[in-house]
Amino acid sequence: MKIIRYQKDEKIKNGILKDETVFELKGDVFSNFSVGQEVAKLEKIKLLAPVQPPNIIAIGLNYRQHAVETGAEIPERPVIFLKATSSLTEPNSEIVLPKLAPAEVDFEAELAVVIAKKAKNIETVEVDDYVLGYSCANDVSARDCQKKLDKQWARGKSFDTFCPLGPWIETEVEPDDLKIKSILNGKVMQQSKTSDMIFNIEQLVSYLSHNMTLLPGTVILTGTPEGVGFAREEKIFLRDGDQITIEIEGIGSLKNTVRKEK
Amino acid sequence: MKIIRYQKDEKIKNGILKDETVFELKGDVFSNFSVGQEVAKLEKIKLLAPVQPPNIIAIGLNYRQHAVETGAEIPERPVIFLKATSSLTEPNSEIVLPKLAPAEVDFEAELAVVIAKKAKNIETVEVDDYVLGYSCANDVSARDCQKKLDKQWARGKSFDTFCPLGPWIETEVEPDDLKIKSILNGKVMQQSKTSDMIFNIEQLVSYLSHNMTLLPGTVILTGTPEGVGFAREEKIFLRDGDQITIEIEGIGSLKNTVRKEK
Repeated sequence: MKIIRYQKDEKIKNGILKDETVFELKGDVFSNFSVGQEVAKLEKIKLLAPVQPPNIIAIGLNYRQHAVETGAEIPERPVIFLKATSSLTEPNSEIVLPKLAPAEVDFEAELAVVIAKKAKNIETVEVDDYVLGYSCANDVSARDCQKKLDKQWARGKSFDTFCPLGPWIETEVEPDDLKIKSILNGKVMQQSKTSDMIFNIEQLVSYLSHNMTLLPGTVILTGTPEGVGFAREEKIFLRDGDQITIEIEGIGSLKNTVRKEK
Repeated sequence: MKIIRYQKDEKIKNGILKDETVFELKGDVFSNFSVGQEVAKLEKIKLLAPVQPPNIIAIGLNYRQHAVETGAEIPERPVIFLKATSSLTEPNSEIVLPKLAPAEVDFEAELAVVIAKKAKNIETVEVDDYVLGYSCANDVSARDCQKKLDKQWARGKSFDTFCPLGPWIETEVEPDDLKIKSILNGKVMQQSKTSDMIFNIEQLVSYLSHNMTLLPGTVILTGTPEGVGFAREEKIFLRDGDQITIEIEGIGSLKNTVRKEK
């Protein structure tokens, strides 16, 4: 099942997408809901980020080959950082290169986990019960801020529009062996499988829940595979007019364009 | 004026505190509001953290003498990090030493800024118009996670209960020359003035607004002065049963007790 959040006639709602048709989501997306009446065709509504998270938690260096390309050691435990919730943006919108740091903005394809219910100190075998579903995310990162200017990653990863999420939450996919890609202007940049993760979804969610309460709607970005722009021999960064797509098998494609801040 | 958030008869509301009496806050705390009817005496309600922030943004190393005691260089620009919003807790509640990291939990007295309206790319002279008021915060930090285990600070500063905030938002205080203290079991641990800040409130809020949109209710922790537990010759960490108070001139006292996770 594909859960969407959308805008139509000034109203914002959750819905269910079947093929190209949007249906009403009756009830509460985080507890009990059912599929209601047909609302509209997909092209008649505006897709939003599928959830408004209380926190966006992200994991660094969680793919073996990405740790290798950046010269980092394989971490002993998940590397946790946070992105400001204000960085969230929707499918088909613009990623804005900020005036303060326009030169080294990079893309990171990530599988996003959306939490369904309050999770605290849960075990790996329980994780599936606490997950609403999965989505595609782009952990956009200003590498100059992240790597050179600041020791902490929060600022370089929290500029407005630096967290595209979508196009929907897929509830019926198994997360541990999915193809994941980023595609820049039609050219594949990252291409891996989620099976290259150092800590898998069950391990990550359980570990996080031992560190903090995961509230309903919490979004977890689970790390990016090799092939990011700054780790290439010839570095590639996002430029005005670029088209960047994150594609995950069994979920869908998250497309955004890039522009400079005016 | 003192703006509170409180619970009474299962309901959670904003209110205005005058002396020891709670009055109704009529309207929206982030736009237009006025003082309504008397609700109750202070001792009849439960004080909550005075706001539910969309983000908790924190500044590292922002007092000159604290930078000196930790052996860090004076930063060229504010060091930004984020605390999970789930770490928020209220006055008079318990700070819980987490099972995963109970041994090196430290206190940090901080002046908290609460944002009133959406701020993006604002100048220093405009900042006052965007601030609702000021509160006391304790940027509780598990130093083992922060300093030894993780390179990123997010985890060590985001355990549940690691962000006591309150007791209220004071709207009529000038923030740049206030006495600030932390007091552990009756003994003063930190004692400084906000005039020791490297970047003052106007500079911090303006800088942050150039890095991300500050949404209404955003809480900004503005750094801690010297005297924290881990930087002392004989290190001091929070222990089961401790009483920790953050006191800021012109605002009030934020008191919490400490207990171990069960």
